[in-house]
Amino acid sequence: MNAFIAVDWGTSNRRAFRIEESVVVASERDDRGAATVGAGEYEAEVAGIRDRLGDLPMLLAGMVGSNIGWRSVPYVAAPAGLPDIAAAVDRIDDRTAIVPGLSYRDGLHADVMRGEEVQLLGAVAAELVPADALLCQPGTHCKWATVQRGRIERFTTAMTGELFALLRAHGVLSRQLGHPVEPGAAFLEGVAEGAKRDLAASLFVIRARGVLGLVDDAHAASFASGLLIGADTAARIEAGTTVHILADPALGALYASAIDALGGTSHHIDSQAAFVAGITRIQDLAA
Amino acid sequence: MNAFIAVDWGTSNRRAFRIEESVVVASERDDRGAATVGAGEYEAEVAGIRDRLGDLPMLLAGMVGSNIGWRSVPYVAAPAGLPDIAAAVDRIDDRTAIVPGLSYRDGLHADVMRGEEVQLLGAVAAELVPADALLCQPGTHCKWATVQRGRIERFTTAMTGELFALLRAHGVLSRQLGHPVEPGAAFLEGVAEGAKRDLAASLFVIRARGVLGLVDDAHAASFASGLLIGADTAARIEAGTTVHILADPALGALYASAIDALGGTSHHIDSQAAFVAGITRIQDLAA
Repeated sequence: MNAFIAVDWGTSNRRAFRIEESVVVASERDDRGAATVGAGEYEAEVAGIRDRLGDLPMLLAGMVGSNIGWRSVPYVAAPAGLPDIAAAVDRIDDRTAIVPGLSYRDGLHADVMRGEEVQLLGAVAAELVPADALLCQPGTHCKWATVQRGRIERFTTAMTGELFALLRAHGVLSRQLGHPVEPGAAFLEGVAEGAKRDLAASLFVIRARGVLGLVDDAHAASFASGLLIGADTAARIEAGTTVHILADPALGALYASAIDALGGTSHHIDSQAAFVAGITRIQDLAA
Repeated sequence: MNAFIAVDWGTSNRRAFRIEESVVVASERDDRGAATVGAGEYEAEVAGIRDRLGDLPMLLAGMVGSNIGWRSVPYVAAPAGLPDIAAAVDRIDDRTAIVPGLSYRDGLHADVMRGEEVQLLGAVAAELVPADALLCQPGTHCKWATVQRGRIERFTTAMTGELFALLRAHGVLSRQLGHPVEPGAAFLEGVAEGAKRDLAASLFVIRARGVLGLVDDAHAASFASGLLIGADTAARIEAGTTVHILADPALGALYASAIDALGGTSHHIDSQAAFVAGITRIQDLAA
């Protein structure tokens, strides 16, 4: 029986899956992310997961392989596909391994990802997206990956979510941005403003409209989110571009709305199915 | 003798000038900005300035006229010149008045300034800049004003300095941005990247290059500053544009370097001379 345990080990959260014949038969989710687990605690953490999910081979992906994780695993340079990643897994022992992340360089531009590559390439492997496609994984650091012939050819990370969080927590706009973000008119107005790609100036519009009493601050967070997501999306797509989104439903809906407003088309991809397909393929290839 | 006291009363700092026949004969500078002075303390503050600089008429500009200042003075709508501002000064008593700020609206875009208008229009009044010109006053909130026939026709505020401060103090890049900002190769590399006007993605380049060990973090703050100032400037000028900069020498030199790199030409304007010229003209016109 081809069973193993896959762990999607992020900075804040961790999800573990017992996978048998490509199917998840048990799983757990907790907040024991790499930011929480000390370098010396990984052996015990892994033993704990085996106690709960089964005494099986384990394949770990994500920030567990970073300098804040168990140990730092060198990046695989894009363009790369699942076979390249499988060939570079870092073996802790004969039945525990860490998946490397991807790096990308093109002149001045440099980029890295750790963990997202499993979902992105898994979506292709599971034929949830075509072998030539633009994929978007929104979040604190939004990943946009161009897949060609099933490999990640190049990718761009935008700090869209982090900028929003910084502006909401600190600085002159924070007082106006406390309301929840909702899709709708204010968000779309933000997308239109964001498409000007003049972020530092467009953000001050929030302040000015507040001071002048032109707009209720209840809409400011939605406008700001639209602005940031609109600027991100406008830099990545043109009219007619199809984007495959891997995200939770709420954030995915915001990106879909921005993509639609900017003349693109979007499809939602089941990100857990994509992760399971990707990690299973890496496990098979690395065996 | 045409003597009065002018106060440039900002959020954090305050400068007061005793002006006689358009010449500064005495001045003081302290940190009693509007963020520090309570609403009930302004009468005593003003009396204190008169004790030190002379028992004269006073004209106050800046955040003193905002909702965090003495009292909120309505904005004058741009396009506007010094006569429009002088006609709208808010008289506290027969020898104490507050200069209104400017607002601007054009469809979705809205903007405000308070205090900068005195410097900007003063530069024109003193013939430090032509009557048709693009002026830039860098800072936490960088102001770009288009002056036509001596009036501010429109203006744009970019939160360039605030974004830099937020990124330096908080978030994933903060650890890399502690070094001083210096003009030079890293700054100019940032300007070139910033000209792509893809800020959220370009910022992550700092993280990726750090993780990959491609660039010494000693250069990261200069690169980030170049990125933000480059994106700001690229949105405001095209090749051949002349910009008149009102700023302290260090920040002014960074903007001048970005303007030059993007094919524009810049001139440094003495911002204190501009303020004194502007506030004197308002005092004369409002008399």
